[in-house]
Amino acid sequence: MPPALETLQEISISSPSKIVMLVIDGLGGLPDKKTGKTELETASTPHLDAITSSAACGLIDPVSPGITPGSGPAHLALFGYDPFRFFIGRGVLEALGVGFELIEDDIAARGNFCTVDENGLIIDRRAGRISTEKCAELCSLLSQINLPRIETFVRPVKEHRFVVVLRGKGLVPELSDTDPQKVGVPPYAVSSEKPEAAATVNIVNTFIEEAKKILSNHYPANMILLRGFSRLPLIPPMTEIYKLKPVAIAKYPMYKGLARLVGMDVCSIDGDFESALNVLTNCYHLYDFFYIHVKDADSAGEDGDFKRKVHVIEQVDRAFPKLLALRPDVVVVTGDHSTPALLKGHSWHPVPVLIYSRWCRATKARKFCEASCASGELGRISALDIMPLAMAHALKLKKFGA
Amino acid sequence: MPPALETLQEISISSPSKIVMLVIDGLGGLPDKKTGKTELETASTPHLDAITSSAACGLIDPVSPGITPGSGPAHLALFGYDPFRFFIGRGVLEALGVGFELIEDDIAARGNFCTVDENGLIIDRRAGRISTEKCAELCSLLSQINLPRIETFVRPVKEHRFVVVLRGKGLVPELSDTDPQKVGVPPYAVSSEKPEAAATVNIVNTFIEEAKKILSNHYPANMILLRGFSRLPLIPPMTEIYKLKPVAIAKYPMYKGLARLVGMDVCSIDGDFESALNVLTNCYHLYDFFYIHVKDADSAGEDGDFKRKVHVIEQVDRAFPKLLALRPDVVVVTGDHSTPALLKGHSWHPVPVLIYSRWCRATKARKFCEASCASGELGRISALDIMPLAMAHALKLKKFGA
Repeated sequence: MPPALETLQEISISSPSKIVMLVIDGLGGLPDKKTGKTELETASTPHLDAITSSAACGLIDPVSPGITPGSGPAHLALFGYDPFRFFIGRGVLEALGVGFELIEDDIAARGNFCTVDENGLIIDRRAGRISTEKCAELCSLLSQINLPRIETFVRPVKEHRFVVVLRGKGLVPELSDTDPQKVGVPPYAVSSEKPEAAATVNIVNTFIEEAKKILSNHYPANMILLRGFSRLPLIPPMTEIYKLKPVAIAKYPMYKGLARLVGMDVCSIDGDFESALNVLTNCYHLYDFFYIHVKDADSAGEDGDFKRKVHVIEQVDRAFPKLLALRPDVVVVTGDHSTPALLKGHSWHPVPVLIYSRWCRATKARKFCEASCASGELGRISALDIMPLAMAHALKLKKFGA
Repeated sequence: MPPALETLQEISISSPSKIVMLVIDGLGGLPDKKTGKTELETASTPHLDAITSSAACGLIDPVSPGITPGSGPAHLALFGYDPFRFFIGRGVLEALGVGFELIEDDIAARGNFCTVDENGLIIDRRAGRISTEKCAELCSLLSQINLPRIETFVRPVKEHRFVVVLRGKGLVPELSDTDPQKVGVPPYAVSSEKPEAAATVNIVNTFIEEAKKILSNHYPANMILLRGFSRLPLIPPMTEIYKLKPVAIAKYPMYKGLARLVGMDVCSIDGDFESALNVLTNCYHLYDFFYIHVKDADSAGEDGDFKRKVHVIEQVDRAFPKLLALRPDVVVVTGDHSTPALLKGHSWHPVPVLIYSRWCRATKARKFCEASCASGELGRISALDIMPLAMAHALKLKKFGA
């Protein structure tokens, strides 16, 4: 069992050594039926392979064996936060995903525009998947709803999806979904099992009534469904736990939001891994922990595009020497979860990981891939073990106990 | 750490896919001093070996490293129930073992016939190991004991061993043993640290006095010793947690009882693994989770009969194609614990496991055995991880978190 955060906080020390954690989203895969090789095994990765024989390799379970994680829990675990202890609600994740900067007491919900008939019964939970432009237009209408002592933010996500954030004193996030997840019935009213949520329940139901009035002429998007009400989890920052100066180098809002959640600074990038490395080089003197997020491997996996995923991995490998040229004390290369092209989605399969420092034992592995990591020194470990290992290899952890 | 049952319940979904879990009791072994090979490594198992290279392999700890489990905890863990959280008392296990159908408030105890001298001091804790026939005869005498508002059941087990079940309102199972575990002293009276057990204490002590009277002419079985008072643990059924329709195919009462305890239907078999597969084939359309129990490998191990254990494993392998012919979505092959012939009993050694589905990474393993499983992708995991993994491979688990 990985140590408690409190223990890590006790033994971690600040030092000049630097850690780079490269997260290739959805890295793990499944073998192509013809070749018997996964995406990573298929990819030509000479630069990653070159350090594998002097790195500690293994497989990580993002949450635990058999569990397919969402991006939230998977990233929290990589940063050392137990995803069973720190839960990120759907609403919060959507808000992070559109780059909305939540503050402490905000409550956020994921919204769908939907279609109801003249009796108020849902006939399409996605309002015919209206365009993202139309969604943005309707969101600005809903943003005009005035609630006493409450600020309301409504932001478009994609197609029929949006996010609502309510800001005000004393809001309680333990609210039921209004989305019945089926058609032929009316949306539920919000309710709560918590007596102290009574005022919040009224506020949200008033918001929904107002939204219904505003949308009445906007068929098919003439009603809304809300779910996943949640609040920012209280997470002790990495600066406190690990005494690090951490920065995230990422392109997509959700990952930047997750990084902010654990106390990282954030550097945005527009381009690919090369541009991430340019940013890394520029800010290398300012920080001692660098989280670099590469999204495209996951997107290719989600699309079922085996070849494109291979290509993304090869692109990363080609640019990799630029990362090594900075001579970081510790390099971690892994993924937040597996996204096999074969499954077209996140999966439960453990994720290859490599930890490279001058304090590694030699291994026989000649290629960075699922197979070599399966027999690597690290064995099959929890993603929660990665931060303690990275910190240890950076000589940033004191002895535990006397 | 495996997820809590509550989490599994949240993310599990019902689907038509089917899981077969084959438990070869006592499967794991230790190497023969001459050949250096374990029972499983010695056995010729071409059919199991054939699927090993496309299966996920590993070693499981039934409870935790170093802990030798009884059949109760070992099976609970395989079914996904933490044996530290759900405890099956000795009395309950004995009752399950003789096929007695306990109901919720029953309390059960393991009994020994013993011999006491004229002063009431124990001179033989096993009454000279009387025959099972004699035991049965005495049990029917004890069954005639009448206690106010209490039903009493006394069932023979084997030789001097029997089981007592008391049925009635308000019985409390937290009772001390009467067996002092040594000779030269009288049996203890039952007592309890729980004030609310006072009535139960009286009832049990009255039962023991009546038993003593009845047995006075039945030297050497002229007294009884009771221990392991317990009640059925409250276990949320697999139907609820996993949304499965589970069935057990087993020969021996204890395993059928354990299966019933977690909410499985039970199909009894009389014969060997072949007959289990006939039952499996016949009921295959009715269920989506099949637990098949093969006892004989454990019995051979307990007898220290290395060759017979090898033979049992080979028999299983010969019939195995019949199982595969049903094309289950997921096949799990493992044991509940190790029973090395060398140790003539259960042991703490981790147990080989193989999970076979179309969603596995390829491995280099060419034989299903301890050695290949030790370097398998699953690594060394808890038996509690097996159900989540089997459910994942059957695509019966939703994503955890957003």
